[in-house]
Amino acid sequence: MAACLRAPDGDPGRIHQEGLAARVAVEQAREQVAALVGARPREVVFTSGATESIATAIHGATARGTHQVLPAVEHSAVREAAACAGEVTIVEVDGRGRCDVDGVLGAVRPVTGLVHVQWGNHEVGTVQPVGEVVEACRERGVLVHVDAAQAAGHVPIDFDSLGADLLSLSAHKLGGPPGIGALLVRRGVRLPALLLGGDQERARRAGMENVPAIVGFGVAAAELADAGVLDREARDARRLTDRVLSSAALLEGVRPYGDLDRRLPHLVCLGIDGVEPQAVLLGLDQRGVAAHSGSACSSEALEPSPVLEAMGVDAHRSLRISTGWSSTDTDIDLLLRELPAVIEGLRSLSGG
Amino acid sequence: MAACLRAPDGDPGRIHQEGLAARVAVEQAREQVAALVGARPREVVFTSGATESIATAIHGATARGTHQVLPAVEHSAVREAAACAGEVTIVEVDGRGRCDVDGVLGAVRPVTGLVHVQWGNHEVGTVQPVGEVVEACRERGVLVHVDAAQAAGHVPIDFDSLGADLLSLSAHKLGGPPGIGALLVRRGVRLPALLLGGDQERARRAGMENVPAIVGFGVAAAELADAGVLDREARDARRLTDRVLSSAALLEGVRPYGDLDRRLPHLVCLGIDGVEPQAVLLGLDQRGVAAHSGSACSSEALEPSPVLEAMGVDAHRSLRISTGWSSTDTDIDLLLRELPAVIEGLRSLSGG
Repeated sequence: MAACLRAPDGDPGRIHQEGLAARVAVEQAREQVAALVGARPREVVFTSGATESIATAIHGATARGTHQVLPAVEHSAVREAAACAGEVTIVEVDGRGRCDVDGVLGAVRPVTGLVHVQWGNHEVGTVQPVGEVVEACRERGVLVHVDAAQAAGHVPIDFDSLGADLLSLSAHKLGGPPGIGALLVRRGVRLPALLLGGDQERARRAGMENVPAIVGFGVAAAELADAGVLDREARDARRLTDRVLSSAALLEGVRPYGDLDRRLPHLVCLGIDGVEPQAVLLGLDQRGVAAHSGSACSSEALEPSPVLEAMGVDAHRSLRISTGWSSTDTDIDLLLRELPAVIEGLRSLSGG
Repeated sequence: MAACLRAPDGDPGRIHQEGLAARVAVEQAREQVAALVGARPREVVFTSGATESIATAIHGATARGTHQVLPAVEHSAVREAAACAGEVTIVEVDGRGRCDVDGVLGAVRPVTGLVHVQWGNHEVGTVQPVGEVVEACRERGVLVHVDAAQAAGHVPIDFDSLGADLLSLSAHKLGGPPGIGALLVRRGVRLPALLLGGDQERARRAGMENVPAIVGFGVAAAELADAGVLDREARDARRLTDRVLSSAALLEGVRPYGDLDRRLPHLVCLGIDGVEPQAVLLGLDQRGVAAHSGSACSSEALEPSPVLEAMGVDAHRSLRISTGWSSTDTDIDLLLRELPAVIEGLRSLSGG
């Protein structure tokens, strides 16, 4: 990435040598990203991130039919963009955040332009029945978009065998840089572009390519695509998050949220009685632990989590713990040592 | 930028220390960009680049009225996005690529949601009567968007005194990194966002902030905002491009396009009789000169240039020479030595 940033003119749309070198770098990264998720390189459209990928999918698909179907736990980038584009049917989920295939299919109508189904949830990690939803949508002839931003790089994804029409990715969720993502568009699917005015990305996304970030995305994908790496990282992540789950279950007034049998390996969500999540985050931060509450895009807003609301649990008091490729047992040791003290301190303050 | 890319969790929406450090970096960059273009920091909305800025302006403004007015030489990102959003009136330009204020105003109707006017043209460098168009639009009460992607960093811009409602910027056009830009939104102007699903950028642009690129944009802006730097770079660029213009005028069958009295300092466009532009580019490239033909987003397409067509000149045979902050007299020496030989060689090949 640093080499790209130092290059004097890296516009891959140009036919001079500097442009051609940038073009080669972009196409290599496209192959690397495609290889990680079982797609053809031509199916990869680079975007500025998953939010733009999702907006592009919705903009393109609703040109065919403005009605959309989505489970209640989808990311706000899906929920809000869909609501803005037309009529939406929200499908209920169970107490673990999982949707029902028949529920999704039952909401499909002749005017439905797009069905959304998230691979794995961004707050509680619950994995949806993606394969079944996609298959059912294909049988009904309705386009289906899979938000895999939280899942890609953490679970194996094979776009070709999945058969989805559209799939969103975010580089920074899998060890790549921010400001870059991709929309996978299945071969043969033709949708109007969201960003117009240039032939970049085969006229599916105008604007000069972000070459350094694309290269970084490609390198991160290639690292994960090396034999056994993704499986090993997922196993390590699951072991670390399992440690959180098994220890947290012993704390009073603390419970895990989500589907513990069908979850992403790298994140867990805890409900904690009697304390404000912001106070827990600040307490952990003072002790060197960086954790989250709420969804990844709500900027620690004080509003209740729509995901937890849809699951019928306390939507005001949750703590999201996620591991990354650099997380270690020492990090978890620190968390497990400090979390009980932070909770206890806060509860005693509030007289709890 | 490298330090940002190495940071383990640079999500500025988080309240842990790593997030707060990223937030500080983003807000510092916002102040730096604002200072360069005479805007308030809160008026700066970071986007993935000028194409997204333009699409955001059009998406937001056409919620008020779908009719748009634009001069014929606007960038394809404006022309195509506007055409997709509703009805468009194209205003003619003169042979030097300049529009007429009365022509623009005459096209405004009660249903007009947005008027576009480019600060300086991306192919021929012609500077439009931006101040007069903006003032006239303000008097008529119609929103006006200024595409300053090609001009910013090369001519002084004062968003506050200009009075435009919306202004688009691109970092990589002024020495910053690719993949980042900004839309300036005048205080008090409220428009629906194009990218939804997060509160980033005061809910005007969802999606995690591209912190490294934002920081790079800020640093480039700060360099240019240092006392005298922009003026000095512009003076140097004008001297270099003046050299191209005065030498090229001596070549047979070569003429400059655009408004030579009112042009951006850093780019010139030459019409060259009897040779294909791609062949000229390849010839120059073999001799170490990286040049352009056509607009910045047409990927050297063989289609005629809409800008040159609108000016009524040969739209098939143009060469665009632009200088950057690193260009020197030696680079221009090389160009001026090699260009006549390249043209002569091609003409003799074609028996011209």
